[in-house]
Amino acid sequence: MQKRLKDCRVAVVGLGLMGASLCMDLTRGGLCREVRGIARRTDTVLEAFFSGAVDLATNDLNTGVLGADIVVLATPVRTILSMLEEIGPLLWPGCLVIDMGSTKAEICAAMERLPHGIQPVGGHPMTGKETAGFSAAEPGLYQGAPWAITPLARTSQESLDLAHELVHAVGAQPILLTPQRHDRLVAAISHLPYLAAGALVHAVTNLGDQDPLVWDLAAGGFRDTSRVAASDTRMFLDILMTNREAVLDQLDAMLSHLQSLRAALADGDECELNRRLSASQARRSAWRPRTRP
Amino acid sequence: MQKRLKDCRVAVVGLGLMGASLCMDLTRGGLCREVRGIARRTDTVLEAFFSGAVDLATNDLNTGVLGADIVVLATPVRTILSMLEEIGPLLWPGCLVIDMGSTKAEICAAMERLPHGIQPVGGHPMTGKETAGFSAAEPGLYQGAPWAITPLARTSQESLDLAHELVHAVGAQPILLTPQRHDRLVAAISHLPYLAAGALVHAVTNLGDQDPLVWDLAAGGFRDTSRVAASDTRMFLDILMTNREAVLDQLDAMLSHLQSLRAALADGDECELNRRLSASQARRSAWRPRTRP
Repeated sequence: MQKRLKDCRVAVVGLGLMGASLCMDLTRGGLCREVRGIARRTDTVLEAFFSGAVDLATNDLNTGVLGADIVVLATPVRTILSMLEEIGPLLWPGCLVIDMGSTKAEICAAMERLPHGIQPVGGHPMTGKETAGFSAAEPGLYQGAPWAITPLARTSQESLDLAHELVHAVGAQPILLTPQRHDRLVAAISHLPYLAAGALVHAVTNLGDQDPLVWDLAAGGFRDTSRVAASDTRMFLDILMTNREAVLDQLDAMLSHLQSLRAALADGDECELNRRLSASQARRSAWRPRTRP
Repeated sequence: MQKRLKDCRVAVVGLGLMGASLCMDLTRGGLCREVRGIARRTDTVLEAFFSGAVDLATNDLNTGVLGADIVVLATPVRTILSMLEEIGPLLWPGCLVIDMGSTKAEICAAMERLPHGIQPVGGHPMTGKETAGFSAAEPGLYQGAPWAITPLARTSQESLDLAHELVHAVGAQPILLTPQRHDRLVAAISHLPYLAAGALVHAVTNLGDQDPLVWDLAAGGFRDTSRVAASDTRMFLDILMTNREAVLDQLDAMLSHLQSLRAALADGDECELNRRLSASQARRSAWRPRTRP
């Protein structure tokens, strides 16, 4: 018989922006039987419990996942990888293990090594903010967001359906794909923007060291283009180090285009500049984001 | 005696996003004696008049600026340059000519050639949107925005005060600087973000040609980092072509940083990646934009 979300004890490991926002949606909506939050730091455990974001909070992984029907791993990628090596013996047979990590190939490979009987599914909600931690969490974060789902060959249809139910329950839209395809696509739309934003901030910082007025003059264009550079560095190091080849490919595509723009500008080749900039203008204007405005 | 804004007939040439938003603020607030809008296209003239954004609308430059106390040039940079060659004989002595162009060195050089008696001041409000035209205009666009002001040696204190009054009247904050300094700073915070956003869209488009799912998965990070790539190409070609050296300098600073990030990632040099990304993270987190959120 299909297990339903409302009958499930859900244990969320990691109460940062992503994990805590999920807990808040589950608790407020009464979407499942019990919401448990597991965090490393005691003050996060206390804050999660007393804010009402979870029914039960602990910093003991063993206690937290005991008897859980769904375990959601919501930490940086390499912490997920090391947890997947340890967590197996603590889980009940049939337990759905889903993660919220930003890269999927290495995580899904580690999921393959979970004990027989455990039901792993890779996941990655495509939303976020440049602010991190429990204090940045908010209900409704996932409303309208695409949520990548990467099942394994061993994942049962029932468990995949339960994962879909969880995603739909918080208002997100599941998109099914392989881990490798996921990693290739997010290299372009998430990891490359992060590196570009960081390089932009670097250039402005350089100039600002000579003329600090640049920071007073900077407005909406710089604000938006550089926003993701303020993201948690630790989280992004994990992402970059577990998706190096795909990121290098995308970075090379961007570098090559910037070099062409540079050459056209240096030569005063307005026709070539116009051709390249118009193509990007048309493509970007035609695109409509699926997330909240 | 100091001329006050409330006694002035203000003629705004160009009724796109910037010019029309300024008209709306002036008209709604009753901030001056008369607001005139001059636009090339007849449908814009009619729309501006019947929406109440201006007291008088025309597509005849001569009629529009006749007897105006303040003329605001709010078209793309190279249109401003050609207007400055023609407009002199149409203006009254003592008339303040201020522009809203995105680069200042070439415009201020052309302003020097205006007939004796005309009072030119360069200006550049540091706000905007990726959408253009009269339909994108809105009251309050300048609220809280930095507004660069580049006076000429010939500009009288009275005219500079009047320019400041205009800027303050719509809620913006004047920042006084030289045209060359302005152009160097905006190369980093406005023109470089535009090129970076365009190159990012190019990389995603390339990948999207093989796998269109990338557009469904793209979310807030890509949305914000790429937003300015949707800006009016014509406007930005004028900007780039009138600020080539400063833009090339900033582009080189960004390219060099991206190359270093690439090398560190290819070598798996996590320490170097961390050092560079943490520096950008700290700088971007510490910065607070002065414009509206």
